[in-house]
Amino acid sequence: MPVFGSIEAGGTKFRCAIAGATSAIIAQADFPTRFPDETIADVIAFFTSNGGVSSLGVGSFGPLDLDPGATSFGAIVRTPKPGWSDFNLRAALMSALGCPVAIDTDVNASGLAEALLGAGRGFPSLAYITIGTGIGGGLIQHGRALHGFAHPEMGHFRPRRAAGDTFAGICPYHGDCLEGLATGAAVFARAGRHLADTPQADPIWNQLAEYIGQLCSSILLFAAPHRIVLGGGVMASNPHLFGAIRQATTAHLAGYLGPLKLDDIIVPPSLGTEAGLIGGLLMAGATP
Amino acid sequence: MPVFGSIEAGGTKFRCAIAGATSAIIAQADFPTRFPDETIADVIAFFTSNGGVSSLGVGSFGPLDLDPGATSFGAIVRTPKPGWSDFNLRAALMSALGCPVAIDTDVNASGLAEALLGAGRGFPSLAYITIGTGIGGGLIQHGRALHGFAHPEMGHFRPRRAAGDTFAGICPYHGDCLEGLATGAAVFARAGRHLADTPQADPIWNQLAEYIGQLCSSILLFAAPHRIVLGGGVMASNPHLFGAIRQATTAHLAGYLGPLKLDDIIVPPSLGTEAGLIGGLLMAGATP
Repeated sequence: MPVFGSIEAGGTKFRCAIAGATSAIIAQADFPTRFPDETIADVIAFFTSNGGVSSLGVGSFGPLDLDPGATSFGAIVRTPKPGWSDFNLRAALMSALGCPVAIDTDVNASGLAEALLGAGRGFPSLAYITIGTGIGGGLIQHGRALHGFAHPEMGHFRPRRAAGDTFAGICPYHGDCLEGLATGAAVFARAGRHLADTPQADPIWNQLAEYIGQLCSSILLFAAPHRIVLGGGVMASNPHLFGAIRQATTAHLAGYLGPLKLDDIIVPPSLGTEAGLIGGLLMAGATP
Repeated sequence: MPVFGSIEAGGTKFRCAIAGATSAIIAQADFPTRFPDETIADVIAFFTSNGGVSSLGVGSFGPLDLDPGATSFGAIVRTPKPGWSDFNLRAALMSALGCPVAIDTDVNASGLAEALLGAGRGFPSLAYITIGTGIGGGLIQHGRALHGFAHPEMGHFRPRRAAGDTFAGICPYHGDCLEGLATGAAVFARAGRHLADTPQADPIWNQLAEYIGQLCSSILLFAAPHRIVLGGGVMASNPHLFGAIRQATTAHLAGYLGPLKLDDIIVPPSLGTEAGLIGGLLMAGATP
């Protein structure tokens, strides 16, 4: 019987799991993200001491080189984390474990899990957006993540500025792209306080809804996914944010795509913190 | 031997073709677009008098209902053309010709042809944008057009307004979405003259490049297609527009996706006016 491995490779920790063909978890462990050789040694020891795996799926922080024709396929391209820039995560795991390794962004891995087993179950297309310290997004169609010459970077989409909002934004590349305006860090830079300490009446909530709503309306115009799953710390910080984002999205579309039930389309994730690990198992070939 | 049919269904004419398995055209004819029953009668007579076809591919004006689970699958949803709103083009052709009928937007059909046989040949992903009286766009990946609950409507994307540009735009839904700002009709409404009569020094060219460049940079951030093909009357009106759009795209990305050779990525179509018909043949199952 095949046994599948999964890694959710994050900037803070590497989460690892082993499962049987029906995705039932056999073993699981987390390891802190240090220098690559240290962390990879922990990860390899976990998989080999548990008998190895038939194949492995990895959802990783990035950006990643995902061009299957490149010698750097599966490498982390650039990151402020010391030692990880240009580290070929896929090659290191493949040579140590001697099994096929599928790799994608952490966002695409989580999106795949939500599409097949979570909020998008039964629907052919889904966008998965995470809004936290950064903003990442992916598009899943018929069980596959959309890739071009690179993976999506829709967090750097430039929304139209809200009336009267002159905050310059904090993205080092673009200033006031979405990631420069609508992350927790952007709110802190703008207001000097965390979202958790921000009263409901503060105009920042409407600004966030306006900018995230522009992302949602743009996603609907570009790809019309059956579901847009919004996750991450910013989305979890205020239960009213979903309603305000749906209102802003409706205003931006102005009826163009017909009457849409955005309550059903723009939704929270349903797999919680397990989506990334489950996505890795699905990428490895486990049956949903 | 199978014989494939293709229709490019436009608001002015229906172009029809029959080809063998290698896409070599056997017969071809155009019919003016009148009321549906009149035009469809012409089309049916053409295909039946030429011996019928094994399967048919249709690229049509729209918007179209492309939900395979809907009873209205293959219908033109709403259009100012008298008689065509809610007309089920696919069902009418399928029942009269007694063969399978694949249908998609005219833009996706042309995009498929450009992806497999034209400007995107050999690359796994392509965006196809046509900028003329309207603005349409599609994304092709691994030989398939991206669909969600609807086909893309990226012409209605809302670009950030250029500094000093206060023109309200002409989109009946959104005012100053891309289609409200960057079509030939929008330029005429703004400046009182056609693009063909607009001198090279007119600032309208930079405004067009700015807005279309925002579409290109957004497409790159959402899907990173290997090629963005820009076609249509606006693009053909000025040979300098491509260079200006590439400059604007570069400025908007600000280096984020790494050094990109936009001369190779943002390109004109290479199949000319035949892309739609060829796309229909490919949809019908002809071998590229």
